[in-house]
Amino acid sequence: MASVDRTTSRDVPLAGVPVKLATNGSHDRVIQAALHLFARRGFHGTGIRDLAAEAGLSTSSLYHYMGTKEDLLFQIMDDCLRRLLVAARHISQRSEPVDRIAGLISMHVGSHALQREASLVVDNEINSLETNQRLLAIAQRDEYEAIWKAAIADGVAAGDFSVANESFARFALLEMCSGVARWYTQEGALPLRQIAEEHVELGLALLGSTSGDRRNAQLDEIAELFESVWQISIS
Amino acid sequence: MASVDRTTSRDVPLAGVPVKLATNGSHDRVIQAALHLFARRGFHGTGIRDLAAEAGLSTSSLYHYMGTKEDLLFQIMDDCLRRLLVAARHISQRSEPVDRIAGLISMHVGSHALQREASLVVDNEINSLETNQRLLAIAQRDEYEAIWKAAIADGVAAGDFSVANESFARFALLEMCSGVARWYTQEGALPLRQIAEEHVELGLALLGSTSGDRRNAQLDEIAELFESVWQISIS
Repeated sequence: MASVDRTTSRDVPLAGVPVKLATNGSHDRVIQAALHLFARRGFHGTGIRDLAAEAGLSTSSLYHYMGTKEDLLFQIMDDCLRRLLVAARHISQRSEPVDRIAGLISMHVGSHALQREASLVVDNEINSLETNQRLLAIAQRDEYEAIWKAAIADGVAAGDFSVANESFARFALLEMCSGVARWYTQEGALPLRQIAEEHVELGLALLGSTSGDRRNAQLDEIAELFESVWQISIS
Repeated sequence: MASVDRTTSRDVPLAGVPVKLATNGSHDRVIQAALHLFARRGFHGTGIRDLAAEAGLSTSSLYHYMGTKEDLLFQIMDDCLRRLLVAARHISQRSEPVDRIAGLISMHVGSHALQREASLVVDNEINSLETNQRLLAIAQRDEYEAIWKAAIADGVAAGDFSVANESFARFALLEMCSGVARWYTQEGALPLRQIAEEHVELGLALLGSTSGDRRNAQLDEIAELFESVWQISIS
């Protein structure tokens, strides 16, 4: 069972990219309310009054703390995408493509399980952002996907992977791992580490990996990454 | 390139399950408007006025033709899930588990590509249905997934597949194939048949298939199924 223990430090030092975190109680409450409502009812289905009610604030306090609904959506997306990028850049330093892919799968599965609502919002609402913010979010998403793309291409070049179409393989891998956000619960029967390990196995099989069992490869390092980037400890 | 040519016949005779189709122009327009808006803005983000405007009707005409927004959502889901079930039941008659999985993957990828909006609505909005209708839709979805479950279990029992956890393999397969609805366009570079074939290959690899290349297995039969169940011809 995953135990979630989120602290409120302001910066994530790993890899030199600071990640802005919530810094006061009302801001936290509004972010949590927005995560919950955007994930469940969609961005367009969530009104400012719904947000204020869920956060226990007046609508004028909400505007004071948070700005517009679009600003809130961008904060959620930007925070989620920055963390994914910090973690993926760290993993991309691994020399072996198989270990890189194993790390990326574990991390993506873990973040989609433990940050279910934020992950669903990122996956579903990128087109709800205003133009400039949408372009920023798309650039982050593209950089994140480029790290996966390079790991797959390097693995194919090294003879570790065998796929007919690298783009489809990447889409399929990402969708398969993102799907965890749809069904994961902390009350589920299986511990998150096992879910991550089995997705690594499925993903390497999908890539036609010839490299044997890497399920357990560096899972401890991934656990450290969760501590560092998400302030979440995985027991 | 897939060519879509949808006719307006009232029943789909295949496998004895009639599928209700749109039967008049206004009803069609409202269904198309609902598909478009629910997929893009979410069910909760779509008002009755938005629907009426998109369909070019007054709100009172819309109520007259269609009932409530919940009824519309259920009609869309029920139609989509019935077709998937008819097609999956037909494919499930194949004796070899590998051929069954190949057929299910081709069909699921094809339906998610050609019925993008309906597929996104089914995947995202099942919890927006009212209780009784939700239970009906969940029962259909469960029957659909049970057909996949049986094909995987039979393949493992026959030594065709090798997976650590059959449930995760099923979730991963379905998510990977459903993901096509997020990116497919008819203007894309690759023909749908090729997209389907390559997903069959990825899916069989994910299942640790030992059965060699089944990409082209019975794709013509799947094309017939699309004609029959969806009235869509795949060139």
